[in-house]
Amino acid sequence: MLARADELGAISEEPHRLVRRFATPALGRAADRVAGWMEDAGLTVWRDPVGNVVGRIGSDAPPLVLGSHLDTVPDAGRYDGPLGILVALAAVERLSAEGTPPPVPLELVAFADEEGTRFGTSYLGSAVYTGGFEGEWLELVDADGIALGEAIAAAGGDPAAAVGIPTPQLAGYLEVHIEQGPVLERDDVPVGVVSAVAGQTRVRVVLRGEAGHAGTLPMSARRDALAAAAEVVLGVERIGRATDGLVATVGALELSPNVGNVVPGEARLLLDVRHADDAVRAQAGEAIRAEVERIASARGVDAAWTLRYDTPAVELAPALRGRLEAAVEATGHPVRTLVSGAGHDAVVLSRVCPAAMLFVRCAGGISHDPRESVEEADVAVALDVVERFLRGAGVATPGPKAR
Amino acid sequence: MLARADELGAISEEPHRLVRRFATPALGRAADRVAGWMEDAGLTVWRDPVGNVVGRIGSDAPPLVLGSHLDTVPDAGRYDGPLGILVALAAVERLSAEGTPPPVPLELVAFADEEGTRFGTSYLGSAVYTGGFEGEWLELVDADGIALGEAIAAAGGDPAAAVGIPTPQLAGYLEVHIEQGPVLERDDVPVGVVSAVAGQTRVRVVLRGEAGHAGTLPMSARRDALAAAAEVVLGVERIGRATDGLVATVGALELSPNVGNVVPGEARLLLDVRHADDAVRAQAGEAIRAEVERIASARGVDAAWTLRYDTPAVELAPALRGRLEAAVEATGHPVRTLVSGAGHDAVVLSRVCPAAMLFVRCAGGISHDPRESVEEADVAVALDVVERFLRGAGVATPGPKAR
Repeated sequence: MLARADELGAISEEPHRLVRRFATPALGRAADRVAGWMEDAGLTVWRDPVGNVVGRIGSDAPPLVLGSHLDTVPDAGRYDGPLGILVALAAVERLSAEGTPPPVPLELVAFADEEGTRFGTSYLGSAVYTGGFEGEWLELVDADGIALGEAIAAAGGDPAAAVGIPTPQLAGYLEVHIEQGPVLERDDVPVGVVSAVAGQTRVRVVLRGEAGHAGTLPMSARRDALAAAAEVVLGVERIGRATDGLVATVGALELSPNVGNVVPGEARLLLDVRHADDAVRAQAGEAIRAEVERIASARGVDAAWTLRYDTPAVELAPALRGRLEAAVEATGHPVRTLVSGAGHDAVVLSRVCPAAMLFVRCAGGISHDPRESVEEADVAVALDVVERFLRGAGVATPGPKAR
Repeated sequence: MLARADELGAISEEPHRLVRRFATPALGRAADRVAGWMEDAGLTVWRDPVGNVVGRIGSDAPPLVLGSHLDTVPDAGRYDGPLGILVALAAVERLSAEGTPPPVPLELVAFADEEGTRFGTSYLGSAVYTGGFEGEWLELVDADGIALGEAIAAAGGDPAAAVGIPTPQLAGYLEVHIEQGPVLERDDVPVGVVSAVAGQTRVRVVLRGEAGHAGTLPMSARRDALAAAAEVVLGVERIGRATDGLVATVGALELSPNVGNVVPGEARLLLDVRHADDAVRAQAGEAIRAEVERIASARGVDAAWTLRYDTPAVELAPALRGRLEAAVEATGHPVRTLVSGAGHDAVVLSRVCPAAMLFVRCAGGISHDPRESVEEADVAVALDVVERFLRGAGVATPGPKAR
């Protein structure tokens, strides 16, 4: 699994850092590699209209789905996404090697877009897979002005066919993922069972002031979009710090113009707010919006607030969680449950079937960074847990509920 | 002159906005147009090793030089730079049409780079023209990683020949330029004589924190490079506002990574500080540097401060200014003198010969913006002033000194 993660980690859009965005040739090459491994494992493999790779084994009954995503943020690590695909694949290979067919039909899925790096839409791959893709998304454009629909077609997909896919009948979904946070490391446990995924708000804020010459426009006459944006960034930070469990981030900021000798006329920000309690998150979003309006008004700058994404917090399926906890317990490791601050494809899958997630400890909680790393022993525990989970998948009664 | 400014304004690297950076095909096309007009006006025309266009008329004696720059900032107006070239050209054409040879040899120059938009080096064109180009600049790289030397060669120039050009013998320099500020409009005068150019400090500030997942990295554990940059931006603004005549600007800010769901790990800023008094400017620079260090230290972020450019304030040549003021007075308009907050090629020329500048009123003080505009009547006054200045150029005694 780690060797395969290294192999996928070397497939990038850029020579010196890992970045695999949706519908890029690099993502296509990584998908080819995963499809090859799935075929070698005896799965029947196909691509859906947006390039999700699906491998199936077993009868025509509703399958248990295992998967994660293959796309990355810019300058990414090797495990966020791919690890979940590779652990699932290894579990199927292990059953296969022992001559044990999986007790239920399985689908392994490598989702083509979860990070939303290119078009600002998270969970695009799982949205298509679950029949939740909305046709208007085809009009979204990336930083180069390429529309989502064009990008899908250019990558060999079929944008029209992505719309109107019927909701599939699925028995359940299990996703393995690195924690991307410091909790498991702090508590010294290799894996954790996710109880819920925090809700997430993503907003695009555009501040429009007036460009001017940096040498001749007096300070008193300026409507500097960057100075306004700076106040917004610090306001977001202050609001994020004020509430326990809340995270509020301006992750992206772009200026027009963006040169040293011109007062910036426009600033575009991407805002991300998350909390396990939707009411707390909504309150934080309103506080930030009020702060943006106050700053814009005080500075004579226009502010546009566009909600790009709003996912409520999701409780994962108690029955599947119980079975997953039982599988962890059977490996002899403590059963640690935790909330996920990050969004995952499990959020989307939970809309159409019971979903569960297993987190794997990662060093320093570091993710979305080339230093992202996992211990081989922890990944081995995750594989044991998934194998036990699959072996018990035919059992009608959920396993014992752990603490 | 205005029709030619329109024609040049249509020559751009991009279809929907005006941008002509150093050593681009668009700059080459604009240079070809200017060279053609110079030839039609009876000048002997050549390109120097970096693409400055030079047109000469008259004897081999040290020439009076008239010029300005042909490059632009991104999303520029049509007059910042080209107007000075076009007024000078029209003045020569007018003398020529009247059968009057200029009383002294003239060189008209269209400088290939003054804004420094591509490589961060202002006055590159006039530096080469005056023999002040430094060989190490050839290693500077643009945003695409292309070195200055490569860019010069790719545009048909000769990077090696740019180094070691001997200092030319010049009788003087006159540059016409739009004011790019609100003073002449406020005082209701068409043109103004520049007494001095403010000194300028340009600094690159790099803040390095730590990237992290926007959903899982608690606020308390963050070393957010953008939040640190936001504090710097507001500190620069506060220091700029605190001193009369001081302008301090963060015009450019870039993040790595720069996506919505990652806490930014690095922020790169370009800082610009100007004042007519070098001591005041130095003090402001030190105050900003101390502020950057305080912010970085408080946030556990690394800060790198790189001085990119430091031009002292320049007093323009009293004798030439006197003649220019006399020429303005002869047109019947009030003689208004003012300090230039913007840097100009006259700063570089003043190192090798007496230099003077004439400002032309522009609407709203707006520059570095497509709305940049001038009145035809004001440009006609500027042409009259330059013509009178040239007719008097053979006169040994400076004209009467106006107020």
